[in-house]
This record gives sequence, C-alpha cells and structure tokens, in this order.
Amino acid sequence: MTYNELIQQIRTKKTFLCVGLDPDLSKIPSHLLKTEDPIFEFNKAIIDATHEQCVAYKPNTAFFEAYGISGWMSLEKTINYLNNNYPNHFTIADAKRGDIGNTSAMYAKAFLETLNFDSITVAPYMGSDSVKPFLGKPNKWVIVLGLTSNEGAFDFQFLNTGTKKLFEEVISTSSAWGNETNMMYVVGATKAESLKEIRKIIPEHFLLVPGVGAQGGSLEEVCENGMNNNVGLLINSSRGIIYASTGNDFAEQARAEAKKIHESMKKYC
Amino acid sequence: MTYNELIQQIRTKKTFLCVGLDPDLSKIPSHLLKTEDPIFEFNKAIIDATHEQCVAYKPNTAFFEAYGISGWMSLEKTINYLNNNYPNHFTIADAKRGDIGNTSAMYAKAFLETLNFDSITVAPYMGSDSVKPFLGKPNKWVIVLGLTSNEGAFDFQFLNTGTKKLFEEVISTSSAWGNETNMMYVVGATKAESLKEIRKIIPEHFLLVPGVGAQGGSLEEVCENGMNNNVGLLINSSRGIIYASTGNDFAEQARAEAKKIHESMKKYC
Repeated sequence: MTYNELIQQIRTKKTFLCVGLDPDLSKIPSHLLKTEDPIFEFNKAIIDATHEQCVAYKPNTAFFEAYGISGWMSLEKTINYLNNNYPNHFTIADAKRGDIGNTSAMYAKAFLETLNFDSITVAPYMGSDSVKPFLGKPNKWVIVLGLTSNEGAFDFQFLNTGTKKLFEEVISTSSAWGNETNMMYVVGATKAESLKEIRKIIPEHFLLVPGVGAQGGSLEEVCENGMNNNVGLLINSSRGIIYASTGNDFAEQARAEAKKIHESMKKYC
Repeated sequence: MTYNELIQQIRTKKTFLCVGLDPDLSKIPSHLLKTEDPIFEFNKAIIDATHEQCVAYKPNTAFFEAYGISGWMSLEKTINYLNNNYPNHFTIADAKRGDIGNTSAMYAKAFLETLNFDSITVAPYMGSDSVKPFLGKPNKWVIVLGLTSNEGAFDFQFLNTGTKKLFEEVISTSSAWGNETNMMYVVGATKAESLKEIRKIIPEHFLLVPGVGAQGGSLEEVCENGMNNNVGLLINSSRGIIYASTGNDFAEQARAEAKKIHESMKKYC
C-alpha cells in the first residue's frame, strides 16, 4: 500500500484505528477452542467484525510463535485472509526484528515477501544495515521503534546523547535511511508529551501509536500532539478490542469497542 | 544447561566454538535440494560433522522464517535433533526478539518452552520489561545484544550517554536484571578493543562473540581482551564453517574448518 492510498483510506472511512491481533489461547472464547484452528477462527471473527472501523491490522508474531508450527500456520492463514478479503487494509507484522544486513534481508523476505505483509516493525539498536534491507521493496514499509509505550522505555530511550535524547537521535538518524513513503515510527501513546518534539524531527511520517486502552494512553492527547495534515497516525488497540468480551459475543463486543474509538476519531479526519 | 555445566563442557572438549546455522537454500549443496527437507538435512549433516569441535549451536531464526511454515518445521526438527542427540551442546535461538512484557513472555514461551532452546538473543532497546520475562526459567538464558559486530553498531551503540557509551550503559544497567548464570552478552569480534572495558563491567558473564571469520574478527584478539578465568567466551562462526564448501564434501569441509578453530582454541582452555 502506498502513502497516498493509506491517507485516502483514512479520509474515506474516517478512522485511523489499527486493530492489534494478539491471540492468546487462554483468553479466546472456549467454544472456539473446539475448532481445528482456534487462533485463526478467532482472528477471522475479529477481522470480519471490525473491518469497517479500522484501516489496519497488526498481528503480533509472539502470540503465534508461542504455539510453534501450528501458530505459524495460523499467522499465514491470518495474513492470507486479510490480503484476500480486505486488500485495502494496511497490514503490519509486529515482529520487532533487526540483525546484521544479510540476516535482516532474510527477515524482510520472510515478512514482506513470503507472508506478504505491507510492513514490519524493526528494532533500531543494530543501526543502518539492520534497517535498510527492509527498505526498497515497492509499496512495503519498515516501522522503526522510536519511543515505546512500556515502562522499560525509560531505561535507555531517554538517555541524553549530547543535544538529543536517544529516541530523538534514533528517529533523526534513521529517518535519513528512507522517507515518509516507506518508513513509519512506533511512538507510544503513554509518552504523548514527547510527540510534539518528535513531530519537529519527522513532520510527514506516519506514527504507529500503541498504548491507547489497556496501557492507559489517551487518544485526545495523541491527536493534539501528534497529528499532521495527513492525519499521520495509526492508533493501535489490541487487548481493549479483541478481549472486550471472552464470551460468545466476543466479536460483537470487539466491534462495539472499535466503533467507540472510530466515533471518537471521526472529528479528526 | 547451567553455568557450571557449560564451563565443564568447554574444559573437557577444549573448545568454546559455537557453530551458527544460517541455512540458505541458494547456498546449500544441490544434491540436498532433492530431499524432502533440505534445510534440516543440511543442518543435520553439519551438526553430525562438527559436534566434537564445538560446545554450542546457534540457529538463526531469520534463515528459517524466510521459508515460511516449512522453515519453521525445519527449525523445530533442528532443535529437536540437537536436544535428542547432543544434549550436552548449548543451544541458542538467535532470534533478536524483545517487546513489552506480555509479548516478551510469549517469545520466551515460544523459544525456551515450545522449542526448548537453552537460550535466546534479545535486543535491549525496549528496556527491562522486554528482557525480564526471559529470565527466571530454570537453566535457561537470555543473551542481550551489547556491542554488535556490524557496521551499523556505530550508529547508536557508541553514542556518549554521560560518562558511558550506550553499549556500556546497556550492559551495565541490564546486568542487574539477572546474573552470570542466566545472562550472556553479544559482543562482536570486530570490536575486540572494547572487550577490556566490557570485562570491567561484567567480569563473570559469558560473551557470545560473532564476527570471527566472514566478518573479519580475530580469535586471538578476542581471547586476549575478553577471556576470564572460566574462559567466558562462546565464539561463533557461521558462514566460514557451514559454507566452507558448497559441493558434496560440504560436511567434511565444515568439519575441517571447525577443527582449525578448535585447534587454535585448545591453548586457551
């Protein structure tokens, strides 16, 4: 998907919600556990119920890998289902990969070719040759960790490195490796006060913003501080939507939660 | 495997070589491509040929994921083969994972339980809650990226953060989250001059050292600067061993290369 196509989807549907797919067998409604592939059936039901409320889906690879080969089969079925049935939704492999050049090239092949996601999240610690192999594929994206939503973000990301904090240095340096049409940044909603500074460094890039909902971030604050003329935000919610109910009505309740966020987003689109 | 068991293996076999398994279908000998699972057959042959020369194996997950589900099946077969046939070898999932707490817990389940590796490599950018979920499992290890072997390491890892460089800060801070019996650090052989400084911060920890061989690092320099009283090093070689030949004699040549390194290690054990 291109930069302009993503913006058009946001304008048309008046939403910039991304639904995070973190399927956990201990939280999936019990009636699905009797099916052949509970993880895929759960994702499929969530996707069918929420697709009108969002522009993106973000499967979190950890929640598939935890189940070994059967988990990877569920991941492949999930991305194929999205690509075949909802080709206008932006897809994110939330995989947090990154390694030396020849290895990152294999991760790029795995997620952007073999599985055919639109994008993948990448950790920046190993620098340019760990990120660049994900760039240069037509209409594919790399989403670099900038400032994350978790408590551990304070351990290293806020360290002063001369005139900048580490996360500012990471965003500033890495943004030169691509541009706003093939790179995005993860910026946690729980660090909304830093969004203004980040927007000075990368005014045009999309930001993938986790942390609204279960982690406590505020949609309004994120929009006030992080929005640009093209909206420029994908706000992710995972647990708050997909586990809104663990009963038979899980998909319906997921849709209701997504709809609440959708409603609150309309005025910004 | 415990800290003492690993030291005992090193002393008994007089080697601290780790063989990296980066199976690439474009480099695997052509006669193996006709088998049902070329990646596993390649790994199996390499393992059988080199096990006397090394104390550890390090499958690189990118080279399995690039082939989708069949790649994950090869990965599972490879770790099962190691666990069933060579239980005294230390196994490393070179996966470079790391995410918020609940997600890292799923990665820990994936690699340390479901696949049953002894250890996993983890990227530190997201801080304590991205690393701690990998700790606390009996006889399991987390191997944190300290100073990596690639050129991109200079982008961020050497930034000055007050009195320390970022990689020193990462090692110093994170080493308090565990101890030398459940944590190791990746330190690239191409940055051997930094090993002395790193040893001041973590005198007792094992270091996993990639970059000898194809990447140009020197075994002697690493040993001079990085060794401790328990050896304290696992020196990895991947491409230099596994692609020593791409002909029918690939396993034999891999063994010959591993043997060369083994020979040069004996005097240090």
